[in-house]
Amino acid sequence: MIDLRSDTLTKPSPGMRQAMASAEVGDDVYGEDPTVTALEARVAAMFGKEAGLFTPTGSMANVLAVAALVSPGQEILCESRAHIVRAELGAHGAFTGITSRTWVEPDGQLDLPTIQDLYAPDMGTYFVRTAAVSVENTHNFAGGTVLPLDDLRALRTWADEVGCAIHLDGARIWNAHVATGTALSEYGAIADTMAVCLSKGLGAPVGSVVLGSAEAIEQARIRRKRLGGGMRQVGILAAAGQYALDHNIDRLAEDHANARLIAAACGVDPSTVPTNIVVLDVPSAPEVVAAAAERGVRIGAVGPRRVRLLTHLDVSREDAERAGAILAEVLA
Amino acid sequence: MIDLRSDTLTKPSPGMRQAMASAEVGDDVYGEDPTVTALEARVAAMFGKEAGLFTPTGSMANVLAVAALVSPGQEILCESRAHIVRAELGAHGAFTGITSRTWVEPDGQLDLPTIQDLYAPDMGTYFVRTAAVSVENTHNFAGGTVLPLDDLRALRTWADEVGCAIHLDGARIWNAHVATGTALSEYGAIADTMAVCLSKGLGAPVGSVVLGSAEAIEQARIRRKRLGGGMRQVGILAAAGQYALDHNIDRLAEDHANARLIAAACGVDPSTVPTNIVVLDVPSAPEVVAAAAERGVRIGAVGPRRVRLLTHLDVSREDAERAGAILAEVLA
Amino acid sequence: MIDLRSDTLTKPSPGMRQAMASAEVGDDVYGEDPTVTALEARVAAMFGKEAGLFTPTGSMANVLAVAALVSPGQEILCESRAHIVRAELGAHGAFTGITSRTWVEPDGQLDLPTIQDLYAPDMGTYFVRTAAVSVENTHNFAGGTVLPLDDLRALRTWADEVGCAIHLDGARIWNAHVATGTALSEYGAIADTMAVCLSKGLGAPVGSVVLGSAEAIEQARIRRKRLGGGMRQVGILAAAGQYALDHNIDRLAEDHANARLIAAACGVDPSTVPTNIVVLDVPSAPEVVAAAAERGVRIGAVGPRRVRLLTHLDVSREDAERAGAILAEVLA
Amino acid sequence: MIDLRSDTLTKPSPGMRQAMASAEVGDDVYGEDPTVTALEARVAAMFGKEAGLFTPTGSMANVLAVAALVSPGQEILCESRAHIVRAELGAHGAFTGITSRTWVEPDGQLDLPTIQDLYAPDMGTYFVRTAAVSVENTHNFAGGTVLPLDDLRALRTWADEVGCAIHLDGARIWNAHVATGTALSEYGAIADTMAVCLSKGLGAPVGSVVLGSAEAIEQARIRRKRLGGGMRQVGILAAAGQYALDHNIDRLAEDHANARLIAAACGVDPSTVPTNIVVLDVPSAPEVVAAAAERGVRIGAVGPRRVRLLTHLDVSREDAERAGAILAEVLA
Repeated sequence: MIDLRSDTLTKPSPGMRQAMASAEVGDDVYGEDPTVTALEARVAAMFGKEAGLFTPTGSMANVLAVAALVSPGQEILCESRAHIVRAELGAHGAFTGITSRTWVEPDGQLDLPTIQDLYAPDMGTYFVRTAAVSVENTHNFAGGTVLPLDDLRALRTWADEVGCAIHLDGARIWNAHVATGTALSEYGAIADTMAVCLSKGLGAPVGSVVLGSAEAIEQARIRRKRLGGGMRQVGILAAAGQYALDHNIDRLAEDHANARLIAAACGVDPSTVPTNIVVLDVPSAPEVVAAAAERGVRIGAVGPRRVRLLTHLDVSREDAERAGAILAEVLA
Repeated sequence: MIDLRSDTLTKPSPGMRQAMASAEVGDDVYGEDPTVTALEARVAAMFGKEAGLFTPTGSMANVLAVAALVSPGQEILCESRAHIVRAELGAHGAFTGITSRTWVEPDGQLDLPTIQDLYAPDMGTYFVRTAAVSVENTHNFAGGTVLPLDDLRALRTWADEVGCAIHLDGARIWNAHVATGTALSEYGAIADTMAVCLSKGLGAPVGSVVLGSAEAIEQARIRRKRLGGGMRQVGILAAAGQYALDHNIDRLAEDHANARLIAAACGVDPSTVPTNIVVLDVPSAPEVVAAAAERGVRIGAVGPRRVRLLTHLDVSREDAERAGAILAEVLA
Repeated sequence: MIDLRSDTLTKPSPGMRQAMASAEVGDDVYGEDPTVTALEARVAAMFGKEAGLFTPTGSMANVLAVAALVSPGQEILCESRAHIVRAELGAHGAFTGITSRTWVEPDGQLDLPTIQDLYAPDMGTYFVRTAAVSVENTHNFAGGTVLPLDDLRALRTWADEVGCAIHLDGARIWNAHVATGTALSEYGAIADTMAVCLSKGLGAPVGSVVLGSAEAIEQARIRRKRLGGGMRQVGILAAAGQYALDHNIDRLAEDHANARLIAAACGVDPSTVPTNIVVLDVPSAPEVVAAAAERGVRIGAVGPRRVRLLTHLDVSREDAERAGAILAEVLA
Repeated sequence: MIDLRSDTLTKPSPGMRQAMASAEVGDDVYGEDPTVTALEARVAAMFGKEAGLFTPTGSMANVLAVAALVSPGQEILCESRAHIVRAELGAHGAFTGITSRTWVEPDGQLDLPTIQDLYAPDMGTYFVRTAAVSVENTHNFAGGTVLPLDDLRALRTWADEVGCAIHLDGARIWNAHVATGTALSEYGAIADTMAVCLSKGLGAPVGSVVLGSAEAIEQARIRRKRLGGGMRQVGILAAAGQYALDHNIDRLAEDHANARLIAAACGVDPSTVPTNIVVLDVPSAPEVVAAAAERGVRIGAVGPRRVRLLTHLDVSREDAERAGAILAEVLA
């Protein structure tokens, strides 16, 4: 079975398992796990941020980052299909009492004039003020689309002018980096806080890192405890993250090539597939999903007439070729 | 001083004061205030809803209505300038753990295709599901615009098909009713819950009513207590509401005429002023606000280059004429 | 029917109604209602506090006060039957993310050694720190008991030493004041924040006032808006509060005498009835409640074998005598 | 350095690391990780509960369990030093809007008459109802004390009579089991929900399991996602838990013996040390902590004049003897 439902499905490789088995650990609630501390510092340095904090999930990383930027009674703006509004179950409002408003761009892009129009400056204490804009790069539910660095920089310039913060949901920032060659630090430079994930394309079993100023991360550390995310000898997981950073970033290019290969086989213009996610419009999503599964390819329905597939570390070129052939057959 | 900053500024008339002074009252936490009970039943009947509940503010009415429709982890959709996302200080997320997403329409209108595209059906427990769409009629921050009944009905038809609820923020539904001649019950028919306000154009000093099914209102009654809105001999205020319903609905037509009169004086096409709110784009909002105030007209800034004025019960035709002349002078 | 279920049942007198009918008002969300502003200042001055804020209910006043003292992740200590933990429906935790812990004193008194033992100093960011102690005077569910000033002062002295705040739930502080002759300012001196109620023994139809430092009240004003408590021409209600302060404080002594009279008739030692609340242990509360109601006296069950009655402004000496006789008959 | 600050400090043994390295895994958000699924079923069976759910921390396990039992506006009762009120940073109130009240027992025991007196039955929708009692066994902050099974059974009998649920915070239930010989299923039989920890005495690096009815766990699974606790290939951690269950339960008797040994050396009656926690009253906690650390023993201050030490998997009999000697020297 070739499983293309998500890039979260990757299983740790023997080398990664070995790294976990031999990790030096300590009690991270006491700040004494050297492996997680090193990982946090390393990821922060990669993006040019002051500090980092390991979290069990990308959702928790996003919640902690947003809580550091947006106070109760304020708001965050994001694209309408952003993970923070679509897949985090109301956590942002529940835990911090914030409001979210959205702009709509089918491909998940920034739309600076609309953002500027949505933006609510301080108009007294009885109006919701925009404290932050959240951008997602690559944009998962828009199909792994990449936000151009120029757009992000223009947003940053404007945000600085008006005094608004930027959160970058970088669950798949590694894919954007590999797809465009943009340095990770360039992405870090446009964001006040970031959430980056180790357990999607990079292949670690568990874990994300939230990044920001030393002060934001100090706040996040306390809130992580409150959310029940303060783990103990978590260096076991951090070691997998370290291994993933050492071995699995550049190879994302293979996932991207495999995604384009499958897209082409399905009659989709590969130039419309920027990273590792392929979205297909089909007559009946459940039927296509079922038919593909029967033939050995698992994909997911993301709407009544839309399916989605992701390539990842556990999908070889041969798998991709076979999946493309099978899907072409199913679609025909 | 002619005060056009808001239609919440109206002061109770002698007749309304007399109604309050002679109101029969009881302890409404025990359900024993006959005046508020009668008002709740009357307003419910006006809109064809099963039950109503008096609240100290329109904000609380909206929070209670939305909480009755949207469970934690679900979402509500609304236009980007809706009162529920712009002026209720994150209450919806904080109290019920819900997510909000918005569509953008400069005049606050429904945009059914965009709503349909935003709409998130049940896709498993890990995705935010759209439980309700909120519409605001008239739409305050969009300039008192009216939502056409046909658009509301089309929304209702679609919402029934997909199993989505509709909340109608009818703080100024009375203005929409008077401006269009649409029966109040027609508005009630398209909404699962409504919030209607007695203390804006209708001139009562305090109070809104949330409307819905008997079950929704029963829930709202308990949540009202939790929010600290369970008042005692509140028939005093309800009596003002009764008086307002008796005397102040039809006369809203005068407010609308006065708004158009002022708009025309300011060089704005009166046909673009549907109800009692006039929005003017000016070179500098603070300067215009200050200059008008010096000459005896108070208006409000709603952006760096945008001012807003509202006509109401305490603004006579003569006031409107004088305000128009003064504003014309200021703008010239 | 003589209604002794609660002192919230009082109806505004003709004089109070007249005061409401002639009140000068304005829009309090704009800070422009002179009557409510004067009332807030007056009550603050009575207790020697910097500022006050009118709220629709005592529950909202308590929530706002506690939120001003206790931050998310911190805690408040109170007696186990305090109104804030028994009758505010989880609002404190939901709106501010705080923890409550309680000490148990059947008569609702302070128990300083236990409080000191419960008290949790700052032990690092992962432990809940005690930010405030809440005291209730008179203590409603303990039977209208009075907290001795010496005990309150001892608590204040200790609280200052350890850096802990004190909230005084003074819904019935007026009764404590009249029963003991302690100056209101003496009570104010031991509290950082207070909530005092105008709609119980004082007889106003609606309203409480939260008191504290200027900064605490500024915060409370914003949170009041968020809770949906920011009313408009609320001077109508504040005028009733002013009238109540003018006329109805000293007369609480009559309520206390009436309570003792009823207690004595029921075979309860009147010296155990400190204010206007009488608690009776009976074989079957529902049966006693029903039998009394049949004979024209309404009282309430507060447990399977406990009933409670309160005297108030609408219960004359004759009413009390008659109620005592009827209850004696029922109990016999 | 002999580290006695906490039993959370244990590091995975080579055998446990090997178990992790060779664990079969899958994506647990999809319910496809066989190792975590097996662990959940195993722990549920050990305690005779229907279902289990792995969580990153004991705090999250407690929050999920309590949320399954107590609805917004209801309350939970617990002893005043329970972990849920002392060390979970207000999570219970913030995430579910519940109230907590406490009874005070210095040794953390049940006090059934006080619990019965605190218990609030359903008295209408405006009063907080007691939905659950939480018991902690062993009781951490009371010094590792054990709750006698007879007391737990008496609580269960009464709880069934009145319709109240019981949550058992069993972070160290294994210690209670080993200290008393009570079967784990006996503990399971008195609780509606439980939280049991794998990363304290049992020595796993990360993880707790929440237990309850199938329905409660289904709810908990969704709320876990919302809290950001839905991890992916978490079988890595679950494998450590499986190893801990295989090897590290019975050996807790050694920890208990070591704790008594240290207590005796410090002049404390060993019969007052029921499990692996020793609490010492000292003239100055910071000084004792510092002096012990200088000599190679780390312990923790839990009050200005109280220190605490815990024995665990990484403390041998020789370590305990040496620690006892050093502490005796420090205290002399």
